[in-house]
Amino acid sequence: MRTLAKDILEGKLTGEAEVSGWVHRIRELGGITFVILRDRSGVLQLVLQDTEKPSLTLESVIRARGIPALNEKAPGGTELRVTSLEIISRAAPDLPYQVNGDLAKIGLESILDNRTLSLRNPKIRSIFKVQATIIEAFAAYLRGQDFTEIKTSKLVAGGTEGGTELFEVEYFDRKVCLAQSPQYYKETMVASGLERVFEIAPAYRAEKHDTPRHLNEYVSLDVEMGFIESEKDLIELEKGVLSNVFEEVIRKNSNDVAAWNSTVPDPALVSKAPTVPYDEAMKIATSEAAKSKGGGGKIFDINPEAERFLCTWAGREHGIELIFVNQFPRRHRPFYTYPLDLGDGKASSTMSFDCLFRGLEITTGGKRQHDYNAFLEVLPRFGLKPEDMENYITLLKYGCPPHGGFAIGCERLTQKILGLANVKEASLFPRDRKRVLP
Amino acid sequence: MRTLAKDILEGKLTGEAEVSGWVHRIRELGGITFVILRDRSGVLQLVLQDTEKPSLTLESVIRARGIPALNEKAPGGTELRVTSLEIISRAAPDLPYQVNGDLAKIGLESILDNRTLSLRNPKIRSIFKVQATIIEAFAAYLRGQDFTEIKTSKLVAGGTEGGTELFEVEYFDRKVCLAQSPQYYKETMVASGLERVFEIAPAYRAEKHDTPRHLNEYVSLDVEMGFIESEKDLIELEKGVLSNVFEEVIRKNSNDVAAWNSTVPDPALVSKAPTVPYDEAMKIATSEAAKSKGGGGKIFDINPEAERFLCTWAGREHGIELIFVNQFPRRHRPFYTYPLDLGDGKASSTMSFDCLFRGLEITTGGKRQHDYNAFLEVLPRFGLKPEDMENYITLLKYGCPPHGGFAIGCERLTQKILGLANVKEASLFPRDRKRVLP
Repeated sequence: MRTLAKDILEGKLTGEAEVSGWVHRIRELGGITFVILRDRSGVLQLVLQDTEKPSLTLESVIRARGIPALNEKAPGGTELRVTSLEIISRAAPDLPYQVNGDLAKIGLESILDNRTLSLRNPKIRSIFKVQATIIEAFAAYLRGQDFTEIKTSKLVAGGTEGGTELFEVEYFDRKVCLAQSPQYYKETMVASGLERVFEIAPAYRAEKHDTPRHLNEYVSLDVEMGFIESEKDLIELEKGVLSNVFEEVIRKNSNDVAAWNSTVPDPALVSKAPTVPYDEAMKIATSEAAKSKGGGGKIFDINPEAERFLCTWAGREHGIELIFVNQFPRRHRPFYTYPLDLGDGKASSTMSFDCLFRGLEITTGGKRQHDYNAFLEVLPRFGLKPEDMENYITLLKYGCPPHGGFAIGCERLTQKILGLANVKEASLFPRDRKRVLP
Repeated sequence: MRTLAKDILEGKLTGEAEVSGWVHRIRELGGITFVILRDRSGVLQLVLQDTEKPSLTLESVIRARGIPALNEKAPGGTELRVTSLEIISRAAPDLPYQVNGDLAKIGLESILDNRTLSLRNPKIRSIFKVQATIIEAFAAYLRGQDFTEIKTSKLVAGGTEGGTELFEVEYFDRKVCLAQSPQYYKETMVASGLERVFEIAPAYRAEKHDTPRHLNEYVSLDVEMGFIESEKDLIELEKGVLSNVFEEVIRKNSNDVAAWNSTVPDPALVSKAPTVPYDEAMKIATSEAAKSKGGGGKIFDINPEAERFLCTWAGREHGIELIFVNQFPRRHRPFYTYPLDLGDGKASSTMSFDCLFRGLEITTGGKRQHDYNAFLEVLPRFGLKPEDMENYITLLKYGCPPHGGFAIGCERLTQKILGLANVKEASLFPRDRKRVLP
């Protein structure tokens, strides 16, 4: 009967115990061999007398029996004095790199090329323990608000936002595309009467740029909600989601976060995150740019630089590097975004928002047009024809409530909670223009 | 401030209330109009005096204010006497079919073609409320057993099981495939030290057949677990998963299940489901076939017919139509399946299993080969070369624990819990050879 390292360290066992795991470290000392065994719960020191010492290699999987004994020099204060040891799977000695070493010395490409090994490093693995908590906390919060989880097709006849940046799939005798977002489907599910839905699923962007903030395949944490007044209802909802995510990561992953020398924002501060209209955000970003080292000119867009300035400003003025920018101009948003008239009678703005966290956009969202006639009216301005929009037209024609939603990039949120330099570090098997393996 | 129908029916409000939702039914009676309003919580009768009656169409989205009043003739025993009513989104009068009617009269193709409307039928929508519970209960049970949720790439360089039945994707300047299963990735994550992982994600099979049991895109509930002895550990785990799923569906979705005149198996009976080796299963199926109407010949494979016979047998002999068939012959299983010697010295069997539920295979699983040398040895027998298996070789070369896993088809499990005739009914936006819309 297998026991976990953690249970032995917690003193749950006194008699003989059996442990299994990987050989994390081997040290010889005056005829005695100390082996650090690693399992999913942590590490445990095994003490082997010369007589029982088989020929061990790092990363081999072993099973050991022995008697737990206190030793203040051992990690966790308890060791296992081994009476028998068996090699279950011998690791070849030519490890591409040392799992127990400092991964900072190994480049990102090598970490990603050798996921089988790099993920054995507890610090690297901790990224995905945090990510699992993010996903769980996202879903749990929304279920508590009466949201239903949905699973929709990732094979679509065309893109929601037009034909660009789509990956094509050979689907029997025709071509379809990988979905950029479950946008249309989640709107359909709101209008179906579920009213409040969320989906956790892959999304695809055939963008060519290779930057520390882009992935061609990512996990999209999607939300859609009916019977809202404006994007402000969505911002309130996202604050609730983020607050719960932060709370759960603090509760479950404090060691994982500490491994990255990061800290999770205080969940109580999330409600204090400012909401700033686009025009004002521009001014703030421009003013922050001017204050920054070497000055800086006027900011003309909420670009990556502006995102960093705005988060710095929010951190200083509101105590949390989290800010919602709303009221994006019409030209920056997809055709289905709900219009907003800021007083010029031209409805040149929209009920839309971005959420920026620690210098990075992690969410785009907004209220959608639910009015059939208004929808038809706006199509020509975007070069679209009603006959290409048959799905949307059915959706809006037969009674559609006011609604809206947003999507959180799961890897980006993971990245920013842990302070990772590159979003690819937060994807188990990231896909970029060059990488399709492993 | 919006109130849900349910809250009014439960008598939570006494003063004026505001409700929003869809017009489910309209009935005129002696100058009074009765409108059944439908929202995500249920239905509520609105009573309109002639004077306030706007021109309503079925399925329009409306907002109404009024005073709740007891009326034993109203659904749920309470109605809302309307003081003001507003149309938020008028539905066109040319509904493709009546949402409030009997959907049994409408064919499956029409239901799938018009998802926006068909999902408004509470009975159809209930399928996906049950599905949401299945997904939640699957994840919750595994988390309770120390499993970590993972998200892996669906774009892979080649298929795990060889090159057949794969959809090709144009990925920048090369071709990749849609993943048939996260098999390799979940094995990697076990060997990474997470030891126990699960994934909820789409999976793709480019199979040409169009049957009531096939989908080309489905939600795979995947599990992988390290440090197992044999497939029997996996069967025990799946029993725990299914038992929890049944328990949660009973707790949360009794009305949804009743709408389909179905019953959920008693969770306490899951542990009594038999595990029967392949050879014996054949004999049972053959014997059941002989007993069935019109006799029947020898069964040569666990085909759909045999699956039905075996479940009938399990229901009669063990009280639950759930059966695990293990020890599949070598030729029926992928190359990485762990061999089993049944005494003939030829290891012609495997540590594998299928789970059959109510006449349908819902799971395939097994222990995998974790021994590097044994893996290399078996490849030529499957016409495979080590150089094509680089990923697997890295996985096994550097210390891999004994492990195995399984995948439950989410739509199939949904189908069988509710007794749906076709698995496509259990997919929101199913994909088959002909269908890529909506």
